[in-house]
Amino acid sequence: MQLLDIPTIQSIIKTIGLSEFYRRLINQLELDFIHWHEFYKSPRHAIHYNHGVIELMPCSDDEFYSFKYVNGHPGNTHNGHLCVVALGMLGHVKSGYPLMISEMTILTAIRTAAVAAMGAKLLARKNSRNLAIIGCGAQSEFQVKAMQSIFHITNVNAFDIDSKAMNKFYNNLSADFKNINCCHSASEAITNADIIITATADNKNATLFTENIIKKGTHIHAMGGDGPGKTELGVTLLKKSKLIVEFSPQSLAEGEIQQLDAGHIHAELWQILSGEKTGRENNNEITIFDSVGFAVEDYSVLKLVYEISKELNLGTNIDLIPDLNDPKDLYGLIL
Amino acid sequence: MQLLDIPTIQSIIKTIGLSEFYRRLINQLELDFIHWHEFYKSPRHAIHYNHGVIELMPCSDDEFYSFKYVNGHPGNTHNGHLCVVALGMLGHVKSGYPLMISEMTILTAIRTAAVAAMGAKLLARKNSRNLAIIGCGAQSEFQVKAMQSIFHITNVNAFDIDSKAMNKFYNNLSADFKNINCCHSASEAITNADIIITATADNKNATLFTENIIKKGTHIHAMGGDGPGKTELGVTLLKKSKLIVEFSPQSLAEGEIQQLDAGHIHAELWQILSGEKTGRENNNEITIFDSVGFAVEDYSVLKLVYEISKELNLGTNIDLIPDLNDPKDLYGLIL
Repeated sequence: MQLLDIPTIQSIIKTIGLSEFYRRLINQLELDFIHWHEFYKSPRHAIHYNHGVIELMPCSDDEFYSFKYVNGHPGNTHNGHLCVVALGMLGHVKSGYPLMISEMTILTAIRTAAVAAMGAKLLARKNSRNLAIIGCGAQSEFQVKAMQSIFHITNVNAFDIDSKAMNKFYNNLSADFKNINCCHSASEAITNADIIITATADNKNATLFTENIIKKGTHIHAMGGDGPGKTELGVTLLKKSKLIVEFSPQSLAEGEIQQLDAGHIHAELWQILSGEKTGRENNNEITIFDSVGFAVEDYSVLKLVYEISKELNLGTNIDLIPDLNDPKDLYGLIL
Repeated sequence: MQLLDIPTIQSIIKTIGLSEFYRRLINQLELDFIHWHEFYKSPRHAIHYNHGVIELMPCSDDEFYSFKYVNGHPGNTHNGHLCVVALGMLGHVKSGYPLMISEMTILTAIRTAAVAAMGAKLLARKNSRNLAIIGCGAQSEFQVKAMQSIFHITNVNAFDIDSKAMNKFYNNLSADFKNINCCHSASEAITNADIIITATADNKNATLFTENIIKKGTHIHAMGGDGPGKTELGVTLLKKSKLIVEFSPQSLAEGEIQQLDAGHIHAELWQILSGEKTGRENNNEITIFDSVGFAVEDYSVLKLVYEISKELNLGTNIDLIPDLNDPKDLYGLIL
């Protein structure tokens, strides 16, 4: 089977370019979301500890099986570790054999950003130019670059309580954007924003900004609220907005929507993609994609890197699955 | 992080010996089962297809997190593939960081056999000498060797509908046992058996033998019935026996006990190990360990090989988790 380690994923992105990678991934995501009913879906399996969470996110159609191992430990940065690291596997449904193990820390940031862009493509105003992001952590630049692959972004406002993180964000993106503004508050950052991304890491029920300063027609991509008791937006804002989720059973436990009930969900994203439900209907409504991350998204990115690694002949062969002359003679391996 | 591939696991077993490996593993299993309440436990996550099943088996205490990916595809042998292959991961709970990925096809066979031996140690008569095994597939020799590490086995009767598999079994074990008898039926094989292992692979509700030919005092290790609709023993036999399981919520869905209800479970194995419930009380009763395989067992073997690989300095270092100067600068990896 194949191993795609960090240097392999770096090579893949360097070879085809991040923009082209986003293009292919958004395409793959749209394809998979349109075939939503063909997936075996379940909420992720999570074990919650005092200081963090460890999750498994499995998913399958009749061709491939995928899962991701991912943690969430907000205190990790104090020890020089990432809050979120991940790895994933792609398997062959017909035989049950694993095909590939891949790093997924980078891939999760990329797929999470591609999902944000896919959602904004359906829900934000086409002429959106002003982007605001609250939270300049590990995922922030990926989010902004993915939005740039869909919209003509001319202005980026950023805010983080950690000014070092905000500076890092500025330095990483200043070559790509003429106007990046490091702001002094979330409220300042969202002034005049067409699209707002909330990407904070705190494990609590927060309210990053009050609803009265959100202008009409804004699209909010709320990705930081993604666990029980971990939300970013106030209930008043949720109630006056059109709320879209990925997979209701999971979102009701983990998303902004955990503060309300299923009756406040306008649609699952695939329903808008497939035309079953309407997306944005006018330039006045506020839309919120209450995104918590779902296993189908990991499936999409794992399937894509599996394809690309074959195209580019990248990756390492590892000997993790026995290859036997007599499939019943496993014991012969240790004789 | 560490990668333990097939050659590494082969080296470990060759270096310390299978018997010593069983000794340490049974010891580790007993330790973990005694601390049963300290584990975060859940039934495995399974996706059932027409032709097989793919499962994730996660488990954790406050030190390590483990999961296993494992399939069950009974038709695989027709294509020269194994019915069951597996891989596993051990993670560090405090940081959420993965520590090790290991092959688990061999390790699953070994841990499954060690669990059988741990169960028989508690439930079979101490002077058991005659062992019968129904099913000579990939796990059969591991089972018999594990029983040999606990009991003074003088006679092994085997039966499989596949005579080629039975011959393989004979050839692999003939150096270790003077008396191995390939039988013509399950009924013939279990005549005079003190311990019976049922290890067949068919996906159906089977009755491998009728209860009237089981002699008093027999211990049955029923491991082949391990999925919904996949059982090996008749209800009459179950009702007249003392029935022990691993983890009731999972066993009621997957074990022999799926044919009855929770009221027929005498105990979970850890309760006997901890002295909370009685095991065998006399030489007349029939005991059944209705074993379906549980995630704590994978935890035990992964923790053990992690320790041993460090002792022996075996395994390969792989680059699957980013190591960053600034843990919030993930984007810097692809700049």
